[in-house]
Amino acid sequence: MDVKAAVAFEAGKPLSLETVQLEGPQAGEVMVEIKATGVCHTDAYTLSGRDPEGLFPAILGHEGAGVVVEVGADVKSVKPGDHVIPLYTPECRNCKFCLSQKTNLCQAIRSTQGKGLMPDGTSRFSFNGSMIHHYMGTSTFANYTVLPEIAVAKIREDAPFEKVCYIGCGVTTGVGAVVNTAKVEPGANVVVFGLGGIGLNVIQACRMVGANKIVGVDINPKKQPLAEKLGMTHFVNPKEVESDLVPYLVELTDGGADYSFECIGNVKVMRQALECCHKGWGESIIIGVAGGGEEISTRPFQLVTGRVWKGSAFGGARGRTDVPQIVDWYMDGKINIDDLITNVMPIEQVNEAFDLMHDGEAIRTVLTF
Amino acid sequence: MDVKAAVAFEAGKPLSLETVQLEGPQAGEVMVEIKATGVCHTDAYTLSGRDPEGLFPAILGHEGAGVVVEVGADVKSVKPGDHVIPLYTPECRNCKFCLSQKTNLCQAIRSTQGKGLMPDGTSRFSFNGSMIHHYMGTSTFANYTVLPEIAVAKIREDAPFEKVCYIGCGVTTGVGAVVNTAKVEPGANVVVFGLGGIGLNVIQACRMVGANKIVGVDINPKKQPLAEKLGMTHFVNPKEVESDLVPYLVELTDGGADYSFECIGNVKVMRQALECCHKGWGESIIIGVAGGGEEISTRPFQLVTGRVWKGSAFGGARGRTDVPQIVDWYMDGKINIDDLITNVMPIEQVNEAFDLMHDGEAIRTVLTF
Repeated sequence: MDVKAAVAFEAGKPLSLETVQLEGPQAGEVMVEIKATGVCHTDAYTLSGRDPEGLFPAILGHEGAGVVVEVGADVKSVKPGDHVIPLYTPECRNCKFCLSQKTNLCQAIRSTQGKGLMPDGTSRFSFNGSMIHHYMGTSTFANYTVLPEIAVAKIREDAPFEKVCYIGCGVTTGVGAVVNTAKVEPGANVVVFGLGGIGLNVIQACRMVGANKIVGVDINPKKQPLAEKLGMTHFVNPKEVESDLVPYLVELTDGGADYSFECIGNVKVMRQALECCHKGWGESIIIGVAGGGEEISTRPFQLVTGRVWKGSAFGGARGRTDVPQIVDWYMDGKINIDDLITNVMPIEQVNEAFDLMHDGEAIRTVLTF
Repeated sequence: MDVKAAVAFEAGKPLSLETVQLEGPQAGEVMVEIKATGVCHTDAYTLSGRDPEGLFPAILGHEGAGVVVEVGADVKSVKPGDHVIPLYTPECRNCKFCLSQKTNLCQAIRSTQGKGLMPDGTSRFSFNGSMIHHYMGTSTFANYTVLPEIAVAKIREDAPFEKVCYIGCGVTTGVGAVVNTAKVEPGANVVVFGLGGIGLNVIQACRMVGANKIVGVDINPKKQPLAEKLGMTHFVNPKEVESDLVPYLVELTDGGADYSFECIGNVKVMRQALECCHKGWGESIIIGVAGGGEEISTRPFQLVTGRVWKGSAFGGARGRTDVPQIVDWYMDGKINIDDLITNVMPIEQVNEAFDLMHDGEAIRTVLTF
């Protein structure tokens, strides 16, 4: 069938709005009509050509929401009409990783997903007879897409697509890091480095779970008002701290952060995030993605005296299990998505959406179909 | 009173057997007759002069066992005749750290202990009228010593001093890292780097808790037989591995170690220990003490994909609570100390005991009084 899609034909070039062909779902696959999709830095990273695993041509997009329109053979967990959020981290519930109950990093379809293909090793997308790659197993920059059944989370039908699409990546990454990875408890003092789309969701999740001091760190003072609205109790601009940042944060948090979160992707900041943690138990969670080949370092004494260094991918969330719960939290008013979606525009303006993100003015831009 | 002690008058010189003077216990302090003491690399590190916090003159030793002979005012938890193990990590049960229930790093007397003094800021030891420093709050290289009440663990009276003294440091450091810090569960695959006095205790604790594969890594093949006796299931000599060590260990452990332990103090090995952990959940525990200023490093991707980097000091054990339990485990035959104590000699041979340790032949030498 014909589908409207923003195609990335080559690295570094703008996306191109095209009519492409989409095959129907095979066994274990579902076709979803995408109603809305966020634009995320990861899409821009791949489009830039800096992502060593980037493949072209491809249909980008991994933060969508939509409706199941057709299911292939053997699909049992969803049916046409179900509202779903595509999952770039699937949840098969049968692999070693899912069964470990210790991680969300389901590996069931990892190798084909990394090659831009469906689990059977082929693509459903083509353009003028030539294959187009899937992207992150989701390809939400198209008004219809095909996904494996294990890569869709069924959600409630009263949730607005142009809001909950953000739960497909940014919201879950931030909220999940607090709830699933760190397991922040009431009364904890936290420090959040970077007040962009991830950091703000970390902040509001810390408020939701009852954290005490919620310190936000950013060199851009414009981030302060919205961060405070979402729960930040103390704002620290490193450019305005006259002493060293780490001891300053340790003092501000009565001995160090119980939990810290790096939401930037800067390896120097990752070290600060670890070292501002409380002796004996402080845990630092790396969320940001560093540049290729970059390394983190610290003195091992930091760990021997009780600090813990970990990371979080997709917020440690098992997509099919945890994403519907985050949708509930939004619908119940426990988390705020509305204020984080600063721009909504039609898919035709996709390149403008990328420009807005690079300008740093938008928190999140959502595209509609 | 007159006390027989091995005194470290200056860095880099042999210890000197002397008769020194010991004042009785003040309020909240106890006097202990030391019956046996192990000799540990930490004593040698301080004696060498490389320890930037080393103080001289001092009475070294921190791995002892003995009998309470006198208690100061307000001492309630022990009485004369009680058998005890001195604790270089005390347990006050009242400070922020003890009350957190998240760490064993009691800070109640840290500042004075670090200065080689009792909590009131003075020393109980002197020689010809000049003050001698306490060491690690224990100074077990003397046949009598004075300690804070919070720095002694009361143990059962049928436990042999010349064996359970080793629980004062090495045994607890290794066993505790498995039981308290990593919380290794039955069926886990573990990799232990360094098969010295700490690594061997890690191995036997992994066996005790029901680990599956227990892989020992050491460049000295002489370590293999005893490690196997204590529970090691696979021995890996990095010098004999033709491929890279990390992927070799990942394959040997079916995808990576559930837990790994660095028991050497080598920052390069610490990185290998982290990176041989299983994607999604593997935890690496740093036990070894690295040289001053040395740093660990890795790509943050290792953490973002689920590995956890932590450390352990005194095995995460709360001394007064956990040490008596480890004594029970020894007396019940759950852990083997007898085979790890390779030499027993009188305190007069203390310098010979240091030589034995440096030769690498002895696992542990115990001095008796």
